[in-house]
Amino acid sequence: MRRISAFVTVTLAVFCAEVLSAPPHRLQSRNHGYMEKYFTQTLDHFNFNSMGNGTFKQRYLITDKYWKKSYGPIFFYTGNEGDIWEFALNSGFITELAAQQQALVIFAEHRYYGRSLPFGNDSFSIPQISLLTVEQALADYSVMITELKQQLIATDCPVIVFGGSYGGMLSVYMRLKYPSIVAGALAASAPILSTAGLGDSSQFFRDVTADFESINPKCRSAVMAAFHQLKELAVLQDYSRIQSVFALCQTPSSAQDVRQLNGLLRNAFTLMAMLDYPYSTQFMGSMPANPVKVACKTMLNGFNLLANLRMTAGIVYNATGQLKCFDQYSLYVECADPTGCGLGFNSMAWDYQACTEINLCYESNNVTDMFPPMPFTERDRELYCSKRWAVIPRPDWLKIQFWGDELSTASNIIFSNGDLDPWANGGVRKSLTSSLVAINIHGGAHHLDLRGSNEADPASVINARRTEADLISHWVEKERAALTVLL
Amino acid sequence: MRRISAFVTVTLAVFCAEVLSAPPHRLQSRNHGYMEKYFTQTLDHFNFNSMGNGTFKQRYLITDKYWKKSYGPIFFYTGNEGDIWEFALNSGFITELAAQQQALVIFAEHRYYGRSLPFGNDSFSIPQISLLTVEQALADYSVMITELKQQLIATDCPVIVFGGSYGGMLSVYMRLKYPSIVAGALAASAPILSTAGLGDSSQFFRDVTADFESINPKCRSAVMAAFHQLKELAVLQDYSRIQSVFALCQTPSSAQDVRQLNGLLRNAFTLMAMLDYPYSTQFMGSMPANPVKVACKTMLNGFNLLANLRMTAGIVYNATGQLKCFDQYSLYVECADPTGCGLGFNSMAWDYQACTEINLCYESNNVTDMFPPMPFTERDRELYCSKRWAVIPRPDWLKIQFWGDELSTASNIIFSNGDLDPWANGGVRKSLTSSLVAINIHGGAHHLDLRGSNEADPASVINARRTEADLISHWVEKERAALTVLL
Repeated sequence: MRRISAFVTVTLAVFCAEVLSAPPHRLQSRNHGYMEKYFTQTLDHFNFNSMGNGTFKQRYLITDKYWKKSYGPIFFYTGNEGDIWEFALNSGFITELAAQQQALVIFAEHRYYGRSLPFGNDSFSIPQISLLTVEQALADYSVMITELKQQLIATDCPVIVFGGSYGGMLSVYMRLKYPSIVAGALAASAPILSTAGLGDSSQFFRDVTADFESINPKCRSAVMAAFHQLKELAVLQDYSRIQSVFALCQTPSSAQDVRQLNGLLRNAFTLMAMLDYPYSTQFMGSMPANPVKVACKTMLNGFNLLANLRMTAGIVYNATGQLKCFDQYSLYVECADPTGCGLGFNSMAWDYQACTEINLCYESNNVTDMFPPMPFTERDRELYCSKRWAVIPRPDWLKIQFWGDELSTASNIIFSNGDLDPWANGGVRKSLTSSLVAINIHGGAHHLDLRGSNEADPASVINARRTEADLISHWVEKERAALTVLL
Repeated sequence: MRRISAFVTVTLAVFCAEVLSAPPHRLQSRNHGYMEKYFTQTLDHFNFNSMGNGTFKQRYLITDKYWKKSYGPIFFYTGNEGDIWEFALNSGFITELAAQQQALVIFAEHRYYGRSLPFGNDSFSIPQISLLTVEQALADYSVMITELKQQLIATDCPVIVFGGSYGGMLSVYMRLKYPSIVAGALAASAPILSTAGLGDSSQFFRDVTADFESINPKCRSAVMAAFHQLKELAVLQDYSRIQSVFALCQTPSSAQDVRQLNGLLRNAFTLMAMLDYPYSTQFMGSMPANPVKVACKTMLNGFNLLANLRMTAGIVYNATGQLKCFDQYSLYVECADPTGCGLGFNSMAWDYQACTEINLCYESNNVTDMFPPMPFTERDRELYCSKRWAVIPRPDWLKIQFWGDELSTASNIIFSNGDLDPWANGGVRKSLTSSLVAINIHGGAHHLDLRGSNEADPASVINARRTEADLISHWVEKERAALTVLL
């Protein structure tokens, strides 16, 4: 669901290393006011014997800069599949809202991501990896919130959870499963339906395609034609031509190598659709403003479609222009998530999650989308996952555990989605009750609303954030009133 | 929380062996219409690697005798700590209600109890025992309901869960955590607050005492005086006198032996208070009608208090009059539940649950109750549990996981309690909203309302069952209407 390019991982590592070695006063200023801390967390919430009563160090970021102590609400970001700093630095709306509503802000890192590795670098072995589940993550957050509230003398402070993408799913689940701990949830771009198996395997790449088509129908045609030309070269086994036109570091030598190249190329379009923000960003890679528009301009520039396709992929993989050739196996790794798992440790953890609880059987078919047909069936997933992780996915489980689309008993959840985001139609698009509110952000990409204000923001996201602020403030007041009655 | 005497276990085993070897037509008639079946259940819902993707055979009883096929509701008993036949044969209200409301009835056996042993007789070793948790049990029921509904062409049939005692806790939790699967819950005598650590460690034995006191204040005094006389003999180390007066099979020889005897005696009063039904029963042992009254009559018959105490204990332990002596270590086993764990495999499983998630740190103190002071602190529990099961209890966990007393976001739960039941004040006694309804059964013992109608029933329980029937019927209709809107 998320991919962090090698570039970003390195940049972030350098940044964090700097931060960690900085003197305290500098730490504060460099870290946007966050303190980085570690919480002693239960290793296995659902088994008292498996690994003894072990614990691990779970990282979290905290700032009380805006907090009305022991009174203001707690805004808690339910970290998802990546380094928690990445989410903190790309979710400025939460601190802006904290400033308005005098809130304490906590960003909690998901177990098995970033520096919250229960078994260090050995966390991704079998069976160590097996304590990576959605349920463990939710239990982590519940225990952490409960204990931190006591430590911070904040037991009467209402808690609102925030999350984007898989983090948004976790925010929804927190409100469903732990409403005594969490008074409300802002779930931005959370595909809770598709990941529960309630969807259509062609939806995702169809919606990616629609973004490019909406810029210019010729853009879709050009991309299709380019992929078709690539296919023809592959049929002819003209691998040296494929290498030269795509500037590959190695000559492909098999159908598998071509499949890998197709995956790499498709992934570039996926990323540009998701991250189609109206200004340049450094989130999940370096991206220009309006990358879909940039891509279509590139695709439609002259008649060398294969060269255009290479340059379009370069927007994502070669933003700096420093790469001399594309290493298709290091820039993109095929995994149990056809929308991409990213690279490095985080990608292994996400691959495991896509192999167990989270359904991501998306396919491109070249009919409803502009990409080569790349089937990924439940059977393909099973074969891959049993080989890679010695697990069999349970496609029905997430729906059983987290209610699927039967949410009528829930309350106080905002489902925000941007209509440019290919994840949007895997989520809740219509309000279900007065407190299960769907917000559509016209012209918005992947959880644009969680980002800090920017002068290039469309009016839709400004309005969305205003609605979100009002609802959250209302939930906080209601929760406070309920607590007062109890006292 | 429940104890099954050796006597009942044997009787039940004989009964079940008969049933299993019986020809089908006899099976139906002998089994109150239930078919006994086994469901292939996931071994570990929360870990995809721990024991591979193993399964086990989970037993359930089912009858469609009253069911309006593919339309009527499903009444699902969330089995608790014992053989599922015991609950089915002592919860006649559910089939009576099924007959009225054309429901399918299922009694599901809790993992690690009865014949639902994931690892057979080896289930109680470490680490095999570690898959015994409340969360696994709830996941079992959720998966079972989902799959059976498909098998039985019953996907549109609303499900109501029923449970008594710990089974009632599970029913509540099902509605809290899986409301998309379960439309409502009747939780009879479910101590969801005390077991979550929201209570007072002296409550239980104080309420046992109150039952006897309410028959006659002299009854309390007589019991206290008898225990005091026993204490004096113990101080004098007059063990042979203790043996003779209590007809023990072995002579006590230590303070520990006397503690064990005190535990055995206190347990007899606990059982009589819990099972103080207005007619004789064969549930958790053989019990006369109104056992508390019988006990007080026995205690106040003449002046030999120690003999009276022995005879009172005999009501529970020697109902048939066949025992020549009391073997204090085989009739009662001390464990992590001071209200008793029972005997045999089931008691081991319950001990493990009391050592991990379920808080049962009840103490008698000889001030607010009539029993000898028998402290059982959190520290005592930790020491015992780490030695017995290599686990450390997590006293805060149940409250975090199942909301404690913060239930305002829940709906469609009946909390019924009888005011004779020492478990009652560990549960919800006041209605919280119009759909979180507390029912008090005046003169009712432990989940009397779940038992089948009896001519000795007090008006209170007849009224309670009527209210329950109305609420359940209302929930079913509401759920059906909601489903119709979706179709």
